Amino acid sequence: MQQALQNDPARHGMTAEEFRRAGHDLIDWIAAYLEGCEEYPVLSRAAPGEVRRGVEAPLPQRGESWEAMWRDVETLIMPGLTHWQSPNFYAYFPANASYPAILGELLSAGLGVNGMLWSCSPAATELEMFVLDWLVDLLALPAHFKGAGVIQHTASSASLCALLAAREQALEWRGNAVGLAGAGVRLTAYTSDQAHSSIEKAVMIAGLGRENVRLVKSDDAGAMLPAHLEQLIDADRAAGCTPCFISATMGTTSSLAMDPLRAIGAIAARARAWFHVDGAMAGTALACPEFRGIADGLDLADSFCVNPHKWMLTNFDLDAFFVREPQRLVRTLSILPEYLRAAQSDQVVNYRDWHIPLGRRFRALKLWFVIRSYGVEGIRAHVRRHVALATRFAHWVNEDDRFELAAPPSLNLVCFRLRAGDAPSEALLRRLNESGKIHLTHTKLQGRYALRLCIGSPRTQERHVEAAWALIQRTAGECSS
Amino acid sequence: MQQALQNDPARHGMTAEEFRRAGHDLIDWIAAYLEGCEEYPVLSRAAPGEVRRGVEAPLPQRGESWEAMWRDVETLIMPGLTHWQSPNFYAYFPANASYPAILGELLSAGLGVNGMLWSCSPAATELEMFVLDWLVDLLALPAHFKGAGVIQHTASSASLCALLAAREQALEWRGNAVGLAGAGVRLTAYTSDQAHSSIEKAVMIAGLGRENVRLVKSDDAGAMLPAHLEQLIDADRAAGCTPCFISATMGTTSSLAMDPLRAIGAIAARARAWFHVDGAMAGTALACPEFRGIADGLDLADSFCVNPHKWMLTNFDLDAFFVREPQRLVRTLSILPEYLRAAQSDQVVNYRDWHIPLGRRFRALKLWFVIRSYGVEGIRAHVRRHVALATRFAHWVNEDDRFELAAPPSLNLVCFRLRAGDAPSEALLRRLNESGKIHLTHTKLQGRYALRLCIGSPRTQERHVEAAWALIQRTAGECSS
Repeated sequence: MQQALQNDPARHGMTAEEFRRAGHDLIDWIAAYLEGCEEYPVLSRAAPGEVRRGVEAPLPQRGESWEAMWRDVETLIMPGLTHWQSPNFYAYFPANASYPAILGELLSAGLGVNGMLWSCSPAATELEMFVLDWLVDLLALPAHFKGAGVIQHTASSASLCALLAAREQALEWRGNAVGLAGAGVRLTAYTSDQAHSSIEKAVMIAGLGRENVRLVKSDDAGAMLPAHLEQLIDADRAAGCTPCFISATMGTTSSLAMDPLRAIGAIAARARAWFHVDGAMAGTALACPEFRGIADGLDLADSFCVNPHKWMLTNFDLDAFFVREPQRLVRTLSILPEYLRAAQSDQVVNYRDWHIPLGRRFRALKLWFVIRSYGVEGIRAHVRRHVALATRFAHWVNEDDRFELAAPPSLNLVCFRLRAGDAPSEALLRRLNESGKIHLTHTKLQGRYALRLCIGSPRTQERHVEAAWALIQRTAGECSS
Repeated sequence: MQQALQNDPARHGMTAEEFRRAGHDLIDWIAAYLEGCEEYPVLSRAAPGEVRRGVEAPLPQRGESWEAMWRDVETLIMPGLTHWQSPNFYAYFPANASYPAILGELLSAGLGVNGMLWSCSPAATELEMFVLDWLVDLLALPAHFKGAGVIQHTASSASLCALLAAREQALEWRGNAVGLAGAGVRLTAYTSDQAHSSIEKAVMIAGLGRENVRLVKSDDAGAMLPAHLEQLIDADRAAGCTPCFISATMGTTSSLAMDPLRAIGAIAARARAWFHVDGAMAGTALACPEFRGIADGLDLADSFCVNPHKWMLTNFDLDAFFVREPQRLVRTLSILPEYLRAAQSDQVVNYRDWHIPLGRRFRALKLWFVIRSYGVEGIRAHVRRHVALATRFAHWVNEDDRFELAAPPSLNLVCFRLRAGDAPSEALLRRLNESGKIHLTHTKLQGRYALRLCIGSPRTQERHVEAAWALIQRTAGECSS
């Protein structure tokens, strides 16, 4: 024992002085990286297994220096990255990092507090509820979401929590006790055929079964058809099922289509089903008054989620989840063992009961920094710039006879294709991504291949989008020749 | 549109130069905080609502300076924190932050990549699998966990994934399709009455129902009694239930008791139930050969989780989850929409199918930095120091007639109480926490109140534990007088 106690903890790992030096260097490196990341090939060119072969090494017995690790980051890790922060990244959806958010994440890591209970760090809980109330103001969300927000990891987690509360409500809060087999009720859930796969995944996890998800048809733009929703619900009721959950999308993943929330919400109310709205990316657009039409009917929602980690300059992960009556969420997810009993439990919010994990890091800091650093003005300018650039891009697509829009442009997303068909469009995407100059992804709309160009980086300027279009035009010429 | 495009993005938020300056200051501040955090009252003294009243402000229209935000951090947030990194924090479980892990989190935030698919950043996936293979070596885990690890948020998430795979396996992979009501099988799950509440929470989420969780009795030390497990399984089988999941604990939350894995694993094999082992905190002790006895029988496990974010110097969140056959996890959690189809899907791992969320940040970096920075030696010294200190503390408790151990000391945890009874013990805990000098939490063992002293901070030295014991002795005198 004596020997163990004599170990000086500072002998291992890094000293404070080493941390300061490495930390300063890393801060400078990150600034240089973000300012210059358009120089990298956007899509990583690493072959499967290449990074692994590079990093492969025996487990180190003794500690290594920061310099040795950093060398490996630069030579082995960097070539294996796809540069999500590049102004030339137009794939999937934006995953904004910003300077104030990075500082928020750093501060959170440095403090290392766990906010599972209010008493574990009152500031973690109270700042979170406060900053989510700010988000209600910023996005002009319904007033019933004030004091009713919680940070989740992702929209998948938020949708799962919404579905679980919906399930319990429909089973009159007996499901958690007796289980779904015991309850003997066939629950059904509804979302559109354009909804994100996380809804089906949530249905699987919650034990409802994919066969009990109804994929409501969508119109040509990709928006849910309420009349079909109503038909499906009626048919299910007639068949003895209990509709419990309707998930609408404010901005579908494929084409950023907007489900008609008011009509869907009215149907949900009549069916007495939980009405969830997934606004993961597009929800950020609500910061701008001119885009708030897409939220018409959101006042009917039982729950809503938006991901500031997508388009609101806040590093992954930070999904903001709002529930009409948080008590329904707590009733669904609460468990109270002795070792978590805290003195003030009646007067305060304990966020562990609002989501699946128990532990939670202090993520409100970064959103607080982002909103204060940008202000409403800055966030609006960020959104407006992307929408204007996408509008301009869509105009160019329309003007080139070889191309056509695959769906109506929506906010910052343009879906387009070569009129020549699926194979040339697929070849075009492959060549664009191989060029390293831009990165786009694809989808299928009405069974046909479409390229998606989603503009969302704080670093994407007019010149980038112009260069992207010039490259697309040039490459299209090569594909058809 | 022209107006929007003229907005210079750099006009909002922070410039690179402001970020550099603020970042350097923040790095220095974090080093000073961690070196000096024993000066703070460990448990926050904020009253409910106090932090909220401090930060309350209208939504800012224009951006604010870093200096303004930072002032608020120091004056409004800091008093609302419980200092988990303090060397005088002995509550719950450790939540280690360390310099290399903080740098890893910072780098991850700066790169801002999302590793949901291999192609989204090959390095994120390949480094993760590599560093989890290192963890298999470091902790001498069974060889079947090589190439079979994934980072989850927390042990709660890992246990839920294990249970879902168990559920699907027991339902012959039909549950995801038809749902639990449709399958019509009454599944039962087993864990001890000392297991973490996350197991019951997972059972609720997965739709099995709490009534179908059997809480196996534990012995005086808090370890599961395999004979009782077997009885329960037999009774359930006789009643027509299908046992699907047995979760054993390597180090219970209350008393760090070690379930007899080999006996439990043999029962699980006979019952053809999934055998999960939760080693959230104690798993880190497996870095030291002398503590590996607690892993006897782990070779029988279908899955195992350990949280480097607890006792292995790696900032929250990072749970390492290992599965005997990852294909069973993928079969449970995979969904493949068109917009996520990637070219290389057959040759590579896409971690989105290994857990509940879709998006994921690059967390392997921080564990890579920790293992390289400390080396096996450093991690062992870290664990051994805490175990030695806890052993010494337990010895002091034994030598003072007013006190008794409430459970056998285990690794870095000592459960103790005043012989005078529950009320004086409870009063003692309250006074200790109010002193601000140390922070402990409590539990109940065999129905009696017990204080838990869990030693796990890299900054906790002999002098801190000596001072803690002196304070406990002095305060006990005040409680009984």
